[in-house]
Amino acid sequence: MKALIVVAHPEPDSFTLALAAAGRLSLEQQGWEVAVSDLYRMQFKAVLDRDDFTTVSNPDRFNVSLEQRHAWSHQGLAPDVAAEVARLLATDLLILQFPLWWFAAPAILKGWIDRVFLSGVVYGRNAMFERGRLAGKRALICLTTGGPAEAFGPNGLYGEIDDLLRPLHRGVLGFTGMTVLPPFVCHDVPYAGDDARRDMLDRYRAHLNRLDTLEALAMPRLADHLDRLQPSLRRPAG
Amino acid sequence: MKALIVVAHPEPDSFTLALAAAGRLSLEQQGWEVAVSDLYRMQFKAVLDRDDFTTVSNPDRFNVSLEQRHAWSHQGLAPDVAAEVARLLATDLLILQFPLWWFAAPAILKGWIDRVFLSGVVYGRNAMFERGRLAGKRALICLTTGGPAEAFGPNGLYGEIDDLLRPLHRGVLGFTGMTVLPPFVCHDVPYAGDDARRDMLDRYRAHLNRLDTLEALAMPRLADHLDRLQPSLRRPAG
Repeated sequence: MKALIVVAHPEPDSFTLALAAAGRLSLEQQGWEVAVSDLYRMQFKAVLDRDDFTTVSNPDRFNVSLEQRHAWSHQGLAPDVAAEVARLLATDLLILQFPLWWFAAPAILKGWIDRVFLSGVVYGRNAMFERGRLAGKRALICLTTGGPAEAFGPNGLYGEIDDLLRPLHRGVLGFTGMTVLPPFVCHDVPYAGDDARRDMLDRYRAHLNRLDTLEALAMPRLADHLDRLQPSLRRPAG
Repeated sequence: MKALIVVAHPEPDSFTLALAAAGRLSLEQQGWEVAVSDLYRMQFKAVLDRDDFTTVSNPDRFNVSLEQRHAWSHQGLAPDVAAEVARLLATDLLILQFPLWWFAAPAILKGWIDRVFLSGVVYGRNAMFERGRLAGKRALICLTTGGPAEAFGPNGLYGEIDDLLRPLHRGVLGFTGMTVLPPFVCHDVPYAGDDARRDMLDRYRAHLNRLDTLEALAMPRLADHLDRLQPSLRRPAG
């Protein structure tokens, strides 16, 4: 079984990197083969543009979906994109490891999604959710926040963490067919002392040790929406 | 009155850029002074790192908030960040103009937020929501999607657009004190013909012509949460 940990934090000595290392070790001890894409250390390009491709489908107008599909079928992905796509397609478990910046992933991780989650490869017009091309894989978000847990709870000032993560859980991971496991969230990290940090690392290892017993998040099913969406799905591509 | 339109689309001939141009013209005709930050054409750096600063507060450990605060008080912002911060602080109206990629903003726009929304400048530990430092400014999201409207409606396959935009509306714009106006959303853009596109541009111009009558989105108030959060707010910085 293969796992891919995608990490987004500029500081190598950050708690985010400590969580990634603990996760890697924990999985390896369970017999997983683990790859780590440490986006900051890789200086991963965050911005999707024509340099993502060595091929050109339409030189006059840059349409992301069409260029991604064309490049995929003509071996025209830039090497950095191709390498990450290969890792994503090969993995059985994807872990996104990041600090919550502005109630979302850091731009470098959003860029990894924008560039690597290729149209026509990880999803298609009739291939979403239970029919998504990444069905059979599991995904898990491990994140840190700089706020107290109660601010992310019911009626919390910042809003519930599940709501904040929905664009990633449902819009990226579930959308492509992955089984989305409950996230592991470390609150208040900038204010946590050594003991609290050790405790969070222990609890994260325990979370990874019971992966098979975690209940997946509920996702919508394409099949339940096909009747309403059928006319749209039959439209010609733009 | 000053407006700032921040645009994120790689294709100059895209409908996103057409909306930005229509918005600019409409505001200028109403007497606004309009600046446009066209992030792709500026080749705006998306990734927050040490190159955001000419100063260094702590050479051993890179803490984003502390380096941002230090740089701000020591004139140590990199020129590209300083220029955008100046535009943001000077504006009365901020428009974020983007295509929905993976149910969120493209990485280049998330990077603009990560790098420009400086800790200690646009918000502080006791300066959020109604006490946010950008109070008095208005903000509006204008976005395009590649899906049919019904998929973003109640019980829609993709989830309600208001839920998808909450991290931006509440977590970025409302969080910093801005008055958040209702978004203008163009669905199904890749499949829209010329007439439909002209209609969307007309409706967007009308939306901008009635800015003063639009009802702002409801936001939480820090004052309602202070009792619960007070212990956290008094903690020493990490």
